[in-house]
This record gives sequence, C-alpha cells and structure tokens, in this order.
Amino acid sequence: MSSDPNCIFCKIVAGQIPCWKLYEDEAVFSFLDIGPLSEGHCLIIPRKHYETIDQMGGEEVAACARLIPRLSRAVRQATGAAGWNVLQNNGPFSGQAVPHVHFHIIPRRQDDGLGYRWPAGKLDKQTAERLMDQITQRL
Amino acid sequence: MSSDPNCIFCKIVAGQIPCWKLYEDEAVFSFLDIGPLSEGHCLIIPRKHYETIDQMGGEEVAACARLIPRLSRAVRQATGAAGWNVLQNNGPFSGQAVPHVHFHIIPRRQDDGLGYRWPAGKLDKQTAERLMDQITQRL
Repeated sequence: MSSDPNCIFCKIVAGQIPCWKLYEDEAVFSFLDIGPLSEGHCLIIPRKHYETIDQMGGEEVAACARLIPRLSRAVRQATGAAGWNVLQNNGPFSGQAVPHVHFHIIPRRQDDGLGYRWPAGKLDKQTAERLMDQITQRL
Repeated sequence: MSSDPNCIFCKIVAGQIPCWKLYEDEAVFSFLDIGPLSEGHCLIIPRKHYETIDQMGGEEVAACARLIPRLSRAVRQATGAAGWNVLQNNGPFSGQAVPHVHFHIIPRRQDDGLGYRWPAGKLDKQTAERLMDQITQRL
C-alpha cells in the first residue's frame, strides 16, 4: 500500500498532522522528532508506507539515504554536536515505535548517556562459515 | 583519500586482512562483524575510505543503502530473527569503533538486552522553530 490511513507518519506526509518539516521531495520527507533523544534529533522517512525496510526496494531506500550526508552536515552545524548516530529499527524487539520506516539522526555529545548497548561477542570460524553460507545463499 | 593504509576496513576491502564476505560490488563491501552483538550481525561499508557519513556524497551513501533491504531479508531468513536494527555511528561519543563508515545490521530477539537507550524528551514549540530554522538554513 502507498499510504496507511491509520499511520501517524502517513498523516504527517499528507499534512493532516502538523510537523516541523526539514525537507521533502517526491520520495522522501524529513522532520524533527517530537520525542527527541538530543537537540536536533530528526527523522527521514519514505513518503510511501512501508512497515520495515525489507519491504522496500533498493532504489526507495537509496532515495532516503541520499539525504543522510546532507542532513547530517546541517544538523551537526546547527547543533554543534560532536558526533551522531543514524539508526533505523525494524519490527518486533527492535525498538521501532512507529510502523512506518524511519531513519533517526541522533546528535551525540560527551557523557550524554545515549548510544547502543554493546555487549560484543566473538565470532568463531565454524559459526561464521555457516552464517556466511546461509546469508549468501539468500542474497 | 580513497584508501587509508592504516585502516582495518580498507585492508579488508583490499584482501590484506581476511573476512567472511557476504557481498561486494564496485562501490560496496559487506562482511560479518567479528565482534557480533547477535548471530548474523554484519556490516555494509563503502569501498572508499570515509571516516564519517557527512564526508560522503549522496550517491555513495545511496550505493551502500541500496543493499540494506536485500541483505536484511537474507539475514532475517538465515537467522530467524524477529527484528533488526540498522545503525551507523559517526565520530566522537557516537560509539564508532572503526573510523571507516559502516552500517551495522543487528538481528534482534526478545529479551536480548540490546538496543538503543531511549530517554526521550519532549520538543517544545520555541526550540523546534529555532532548530527548524537553523537546520533548514544549512541544508
């Protein structure tokens, strides 16, 4: 479907719910997150409704991603943030709150308490070879 | 610069350090993360060396992003993960460990203890209007 009448982001794109808009073109829409994790936290979304990124075509994802460097530069300059995260959550247990694909740009500062939890494991050869086979067979 | 002789990811792209490769084309390279947060955790990187995504052109980011839906589908099918995060960290205090742009694909399961910390604030009108002006002026 190209638009979901119950989706808050579809309503924002359609102008039925107000937002603080940063950018729009024929494929992409960008606005400030109203529940920001930091000053300048904003979103890039496709105009069309997709719940998760695997439902999108490569060109549709590319259209969103093309804006990331340009918007990153503008947000960094506007906020003076030292770094930033680009985050896109998909489906159950991922932290996705609105089921319409969105890329977060989250400005970061020292000791801000944000970030991704990172209990890194270690990849052993046997698991790696199995995963490599399983993934590449499906690519 | 197109390649940094001291960069571990540039060495992986050049075949000087081994990896478990998932995909490559003329612009993009993908492989399993050797410090995985979950089974199937993998990376998409540009072949060329850029420290942070703001240094890249829109088309170069688009080339990396075009692979995300396809690789997401393959990883999800291979691992049976319920959801997944796409994460790309930039610069100081962002969690970026290797200074060569990389997109993480991190499969997620219930109660896995992963995810982004989310102490959401609330965006007030005055701040929003100031930020919208400051960002859009720089876009």
